[in-house]
Amino acid sequence: MTNKFYQQFRLGVLGGGQLGRMLIQSGIDLNIEFNVLDPDANAPCSQISHFTCGKLTDFDTVMAFGEKCDLITIEIENVNIDALKELVKKGKKVFPQPEVIELIQDKRVQKQFYKEHGIPTAEFILTENRSDVLKYASAFVPSAHKLGKGGYDGQGVQIIRSTDDLHKAFDAPGVLEKLIDFEKEIAVIVSRNERGEVRVFPSVEMVFHPEANLVEYLLSPAQIDDALENRAAEIATSIIEKLKMVGILAVEMFLTKDHKLLVNEIAPRPHNSGHHTIEANATSQYQQHLRAILGLAPGNTEAILPAAMVNLLGEEGHTGVANYSGLEEVLAITGTHVHLYGKKMTKPFRKMGHVTIVDRDVDSLKKKIDFVKKTLKVTT
Amino acid sequence: MTNKFYQQFRLGVLGGGQLGRMLIQSGIDLNIEFNVLDPDANAPCSQISHFTCGKLTDFDTVMAFGEKCDLITIEIENVNIDALKELVKKGKKVFPQPEVIELIQDKRVQKQFYKEHGIPTAEFILTENRSDVLKYASAFVPSAHKLGKGGYDGQGVQIIRSTDDLHKAFDAPGVLEKLIDFEKEIAVIVSRNERGEVRVFPSVEMVFHPEANLVEYLLSPAQIDDALENRAAEIATSIIEKLKMVGILAVEMFLTKDHKLLVNEIAPRPHNSGHHTIEANATSQYQQHLRAILGLAPGNTEAILPAAMVNLLGEEGHTGVANYSGLEEVLAITGTHVHLYGKKMTKPFRKMGHVTIVDRDVDSLKKKIDFVKKTLKVTT
Repeated sequence: MTNKFYQQFRLGVLGGGQLGRMLIQSGIDLNIEFNVLDPDANAPCSQISHFTCGKLTDFDTVMAFGEKCDLITIEIENVNIDALKELVKKGKKVFPQPEVIELIQDKRVQKQFYKEHGIPTAEFILTENRSDVLKYASAFVPSAHKLGKGGYDGQGVQIIRSTDDLHKAFDAPGVLEKLIDFEKEIAVIVSRNERGEVRVFPSVEMVFHPEANLVEYLLSPAQIDDALENRAAEIATSIIEKLKMVGILAVEMFLTKDHKLLVNEIAPRPHNSGHHTIEANATSQYQQHLRAILGLAPGNTEAILPAAMVNLLGEEGHTGVANYSGLEEVLAITGTHVHLYGKKMTKPFRKMGHVTIVDRDVDSLKKKIDFVKKTLKVTT
Repeated sequence: MTNKFYQQFRLGVLGGGQLGRMLIQSGIDLNIEFNVLDPDANAPCSQISHFTCGKLTDFDTVMAFGEKCDLITIEIENVNIDALKELVKKGKKVFPQPEVIELIQDKRVQKQFYKEHGIPTAEFILTENRSDVLKYASAFVPSAHKLGKGGYDGQGVQIIRSTDDLHKAFDAPGVLEKLIDFEKEIAVIVSRNERGEVRVFPSVEMVFHPEANLVEYLLSPAQIDDALENRAAEIATSIIEKLKMVGILAVEMFLTKDHKLLVNEIAPRPHNSGHHTIEANATSQYQQHLRAILGLAPGNTEAILPAAMVNLLGEEGHTGVANYSGLEEVLAITGTHVHLYGKKMTKPFRKMGHVTIVDRDVDSLKKKIDFVKKTLKVTT
């Protein structure tokens, strides 16, 4: 990797959503030329990159796209793995590695990986179809039944609280998992480059929307003690090292009521739980991902100020061209950073943007979160 | 201005250099569609905007460009003012206002403005040609002779230290100004929106390169006492209010050895002396400019961490395709933020990028500045 690297280097990104958009905002600083593939001609990255409209799951489309690039990465996991493997065979660098994405695409393989490598996770059993679920359910109620492949953003998960819920189980390969009665959910982002240098971001604490199963807001750093913080970092480090992954990995964990950490899900890319790092940490997750895949030194991950991140979701009952009300009022509050994702159309619970709020004083921060949530709305 | 404003709103920017590039990076967050005009097809903004290649000083080019836009701003002052005035007549918003840009394009008019409005500035006399300079020089040695129009980045200024230097004076309308034996040079950035809301950034202290007459690095906040800090803010506020300007204004001032502040130059746009605000202040100068011209609430300008900004200039003796050496080493230092400007070709003293360094400890910060300056080089 020569120093000439930083000019007219073509980075290919599979997926053109908001994560890609923020990756571009960060990568502009390193003279990276972004080439983006996404099936939506109006994707958030379409206006600020060399954009190709095409299917991420189609072998030929991904091959043709990848062949134009010097390095390929992803901002969504649902991509054609065979094409990525073929690109690696042809000498292209693909980070995260196709095998890692493949493992993460299938929740069954992911759970087995945890088990084999001693990574703490909720007790589970693999199910092939609905009758498997009926068979095992009694030992696992309450439980979550998760589709092996294809689940996304709250899709592909059914909560089984009693036998009355059993009809909701998927009639396809899945995982039946003991429902964790957790105290908190936290997330840790960890990065690793080809030289094996690993850096962990301070953990964040997530608060979920009760209906949409999407993160409603998060607090950084998480309000947990040092022992747990260290344990969370240790688990995240162990996973990225065992995967030998290059890039960044978001690790979502449950903190159980008896103070154990159990890994819930992982994502091998910039993640919703790391948006706040743009303003609140010494290095953002986007810059850290670029540094990891480009083989650069990892940045310092220190949290500079306490921060909250509020997802800006489309309001229920509104589908159509988006209108942002309350934006003026929110921008007037000290420490707010509004990020809109360039999406023309809104629909209920669609991620339309986010607001990061930084404040030295955590009580003041919490008041601002309430204000932002009450004030800023995406309607039609 | 409705809330629909933030989608597919076309902002036109005259000039496509690094200031425009960083404005785009910030404006992506507000769903702004950037339309950029620049005579260089490979300008730093060309890859990340709707780009038009054309002359900024040509009436028809600026008119045709401006008519496609909802709002027009600048990132360089040398633009066709008649076209901008005509666009205003046709109902387009142009911020900063054409009259302000016009005033600032001519150092003679600028100096007279200071005098008329009681803004402190170095003693001066207007000169029409070289023989005027010969006539007045004796009363003004040592002095700076500045071209009225067309000076840029250290061009258009000649230092007259003795009668031997008089042949260097411009034979064109200019200003002969008493050379200030200053202790420091500081800069203050101030913003104002249409509602008249004004916000001032903390002042920064500049250190110049002895040969190139370009800022070599700056320190934020400036190491001056509160009385001077308040006085600097007061002067900057007074200028932007008297200009009734909308947008941001950079005010460069000399701090004389007897602790007076004298205004040196002003620029009605994001400025080299405000790059550090991206990482070091609650709101960046780019976001503040956008907020001002869009009629939004101004952001908080507080300095969060002490910062230094080092300009990354093309090395002497190197002209051609740029190569960045030492980039890896610099990125490895905690608190460094490298911004490259996407310029393929380097030449001596060309601004190729900058590095902002943040550090809670000012001594540590100064060591890092030295390291960055020693390590990071742009050669061929």
